[in-house]
Amino acid sequence: MIDLFVIKVGGNVIDNPALLDTFLQQFSKIQGKKILIHGGGKIATRIGDKLGIESKYVDGRRITDADTIDVVTMVYGGLVNKQLVAKLQANGCNAIGMTGADANIIPAVKRPVKEIDYGFVGDIDNDQVQSAPLKALLEANLTPVFASLTHDGKGQILNTNADTIASALAIAMSKVYNVRLIYCFEKKGVLHDAQDDNAVINLIDRQIYNELLADGVLTDGILPKLNNAFAAIESGVSEVLIGHADDVLSNTSETVAGTLIR
Amino acid sequence: MIDLFVIKVGGNVIDNPALLDTFLQQFSKIQGKKILIHGGGKIATRIGDKLGIESKYVDGRRITDADTIDVVTMVYGGLVNKQLVAKLQANGCNAIGMTGADANIIPAVKRPVKEIDYGFVGDIDNDQVQSAPLKALLEANLTPVFASLTHDGKGQILNTNADTIASALAIAMSKVYNVRLIYCFEKKGVLHDAQDDNAVINLIDRQIYNELLADGVLTDGILPKLNNAFAAIESGVSEVLIGHADDVLSNTSETVAGTLIR
Repeated sequence: MIDLFVIKVGGNVIDNPALLDTFLQQFSKIQGKKILIHGGGKIATRIGDKLGIESKYVDGRRITDADTIDVVTMVYGGLVNKQLVAKLQANGCNAIGMTGADANIIPAVKRPVKEIDYGFVGDIDNDQVQSAPLKALLEANLTPVFASLTHDGKGQILNTNADTIASALAIAMSKVYNVRLIYCFEKKGVLHDAQDDNAVINLIDRQIYNELLADGVLTDGILPKLNNAFAAIESGVSEVLIGHADDVLSNTSETVAGTLIR
Repeated sequence: MIDLFVIKVGGNVIDNPALLDTFLQQFSKIQGKKILIHGGGKIATRIGDKLGIESKYVDGRRITDADTIDVVTMVYGGLVNKQLVAKLQANGCNAIGMTGADANIIPAVKRPVKEIDYGFVGDIDNDQVQSAPLKALLEANLTPVFASLTHDGKGQILNTNADTIASALAIAMSKVYNVRLIYCFEKKGVLHDAQDDNAVINLIDRQIYNELLADGVLTDGILPKLNNAFAAIESGVSEVLIGHADDVLSNTSETVAGTLIR
């Protein structure tokens, strides 16, 4: 019996007011314990541009320099996080906004410089994630809402991928709860046919996965998501679900609209 | 016996890196339960200027329009709050950053428009402050750090004076704890002689207050602080202390450097 939902909402939902409102209404209706993880969408880039801070990329990877970490701290940890909290409160969901620095829940290490210096980017050691304070919040009937930020324990905020944070939190909390980790994105789930958005595969296990691989059905976009899902399951997460933000409520039930992986 | 310190740190401390470091080191050494409240100093104005958002004033009072509430949400709730949390964590203090919207701790009402439309400014009804979730955080050995923001329960973040938030939290928590409310500012305390920064009056009660008033010792700057202090005490706060940010640790003891009001 699943007793904790760890739900990551994508930047495309954050950027779309109508989609976001629907998502937050549905999210607020989910019974029982739940955690939300978000990034910042395109708002951080827009505000960085206005502040004259150039987005820097090396080999297509974003570099988080000193100015950029201030912008993402402001936008993800402040503007987006608190607007989400205020809207969830308006929907009757007792949200508490935070980052991985708060209550020291997600300690991280600044990514070592090898070929590329990513700047203030934090890598998480899943074993270091602190489940106890998060459990205390959940037991107090609060809904933690995480911006995709961590810290190095030495006073520095770090930028960390929201998918990675969702996975790390789900794994850490799987010691205490039976966790379904839900990734909300812009498709209904993993598709039989990339041309048909409604051809959702509702259940994937290891055997089905191997068959789909052999059949060449899986696209390059979905493969890393599935590999991450199986990695989370091997680390203790009960189930992973990939689905549309609009379907988040039904995707917490037994009869899912999206793709359940277990 | 005091068992909760509610401490407000002023904008001048936030704006001064050396003073802030000393303050945070001392704050982290305070034994027992504590809550920190902060505003944003001049950083919000600086970032607002860079974003091309003009600071607006009517009769010397700042107006919080739609652009401005976004800036203060970013800067107070994001940049300043998370940097304080990360630094406190580095000092071994298990801080959790929040606003009045988080866990619905400080519901507020948008200030009604009379002569002046203050914009997105929140007025607090002290009876509506939620002590239960804050108690749960304190009992989990967390140190809540509040940015000076509230919400209207309908999805809107509101700007609220940090002194007012500190007072409202101290009053609400005085139902559960014996609270000393500490205001940290740039003077050592209430002075016998405005020209002598070391002429601190260490204890003021109602009788001493009346004598000081009769003697004309109190300056216009300190009178509202003292009136607010007595108002907090009349609403249940055990003690109020006014002192320098540098002295915050000794100001949690019995032999205070600042001015203790009770």
